[in-house]
Amino acid sequence: MNKLLIVGTIAFDAIESPFGKTDKILGGAATYIGLAASKFDVDAALVSVVGDDLPSDYLNLLKDKNLNLDGVEIVQGGKTFFWSGKYHNDLNTRDTLDTQLNTLADFKPIIPAAYKNADVVMLGNLAPSVQASVLDQLESKPKLVVLDTMNFWMEHTLDELMAVIKRVDVITINDEEARQLTGEYSLVVAAKKIHAMGPKYVVIKKGEHGALLFHDGHIFFAPALPLEEVFDPTGAGDTFAGGLVGYVAKTGDFSFEGLKNAIIYGSNLASFCVEKFGTERMVQLEDTEMNQRLIEFDKLTKFNIEV
Amino acid sequence: MNKLLIVGTIAFDAIESPFGKTDKILGGAATYIGLAASKFDVDAALVSVVGDDLPSDYLNLLKDKNLNLDGVEIVQGGKTFFWSGKYHNDLNTRDTLDTQLNTLADFKPIIPAAYKNADVVMLGNLAPSVQASVLDQLESKPKLVVLDTMNFWMEHTLDELMAVIKRVDVITINDEEARQLTGEYSLVVAAKKIHAMGPKYVVIKKGEHGALLFHDGHIFFAPALPLEEVFDPTGAGDTFAGGLVGYVAKTGDFSFEGLKNAIIYGSNLASFCVEKFGTERMVQLEDTEMNQRLIEFDKLTKFNIEV
Repeated sequence: MNKLLIVGTIAFDAIESPFGKTDKILGGAATYIGLAASKFDVDAALVSVVGDDLPSDYLNLLKDKNLNLDGVEIVQGGKTFFWSGKYHNDLNTRDTLDTQLNTLADFKPIIPAAYKNADVVMLGNLAPSVQASVLDQLESKPKLVVLDTMNFWMEHTLDELMAVIKRVDVITINDEEARQLTGEYSLVVAAKKIHAMGPKYVVIKKGEHGALLFHDGHIFFAPALPLEEVFDPTGAGDTFAGGLVGYVAKTGDFSFEGLKNAIIYGSNLASFCVEKFGTERMVQLEDTEMNQRLIEFDKLTKFNIEV
Repeated sequence: MNKLLIVGTIAFDAIESPFGKTDKILGGAATYIGLAASKFDVDAALVSVVGDDLPSDYLNLLKDKNLNLDGVEIVQGGKTFFWSGKYHNDLNTRDTLDTQLNTLADFKPIIPAAYKNADVVMLGNLAPSVQASVLDQLESKPKLVVLDTMNFWMEHTLDELMAVIKRVDVITINDEEARQLTGEYSLVVAAKKIHAMGPKYVVIKKGEHGALLFHDGHIFFAPALPLEEVFDPTGAGDTFAGGLVGYVAKTGDFSFEGLKNAIIYGSNLASFCVEKFGTERMVQLEDTEMNQRLIEFDKLTKFNIEV
């Protein structure tokens, strides 16, 4: 069984959307990535940091999904990273209302010995220096390293970001960030420039417009499933990444064909994530629902033209 | 051979984009629809109005594509409809700099006798009352009527628009317009409401993000081909519609499966249209290029997951 190492935040989120408002609920990149990856039969571990204010129920919820939490540091007397945001009516844009780094400010991930030979490593959105420190601790070269990042690091720690991008196989990045990173409007040209920075697979996420996978001059497109109702987009990108790494860790297929299927699974899982607030939908999600919706993805895209 | 009747504008366009600027060149919905439809082996006629200021070369260019122009009225002493626009850097938004209706202001389409029994009718973007007058002149019920429209008619002649929408089989509309027409943000819900207005097929165009086809609770998605360079988006939506009607007129397949293929052809042709200014790319387009790019559409979307 392939080992999957996931590094990222476990957080308190407080979310406002046109459909309602939450108190502090479980959130964070590692949480969403882990919940999505847990849908696959893999040996997955989370590495993160929290304060002792995080309810043990939250950690138990992750343990119940067979996620190994040996690498989750609980800082006694510390407070858990907190993010609060408000979505606009279109749900495509949001304002950050509050960010309290708390224990995340001094996060020095320690990779558990049993996962220093992980086959697949998912570096969730974190400071590039923290992402690099994870790779430095590994004892063998992983079969696939996936990195997620965001505009904040482009603006504040670009050199460190470029250094870690050079070391990964797959980068997931949204369309506006790909444009910002490369100065190119065309996503095709932007992907070429990002390839040249290191990653052999470039995944550009377009939210409700789906995701593009670029590899060696080839392009594959995974649509987002058109939904009647989107409740809360929080965590959709991380859920997408979690589906991607969970699927490739399960299959061990790191080819372009394997990655195509992986982003379809990612898109599939993300389509569930947004249906309820926070992690609620992902926690409840049944395999039969996931498989049923894959058939919808198939129907959504299959055509038959003889040229 | 199925007869295809296309009603819409033939125009002078003057276009500015980040890549350059044109003088008055050939444009208009009927022009783009006709050029796209001419890629298929159909008996197609354009119905439109122009002034005698339109160079005969422009009309000859359309005739050379085997488009019947008996229904194109040339008003002696009249001036041809003129539109001028400037695209912003992202090419997704544009400002209209000038609109001169000229002969279009009094356009009363006369359907040539030979096309009053058309099998497929394409009502390009025009005043809804003008679109309705086309349907009123038909002597037999077409197998498929397709209507394109825009926000202007929703704002100024909504009752007439609703009356003509009720009479068509397919509506093509862009995402923002679908939201405006229905007051619904979710395109799935918007499409349901538009179905209830009459059309059994609802096509929502999302520009560079592709197009959705809704029918009887089912959804199909045609991606736009990711391009390195987009020069001029003018006419892309009409080219899409022209590919759609040209394909269904050729095949005579008005089923959901047939329409799926039709919007793939539409998206394929639109991907060429934007590669050069105005109609230039469509005029030159070879069948071999079109077929080659269909293979790219296939590769872009095909995946193989066993559930």
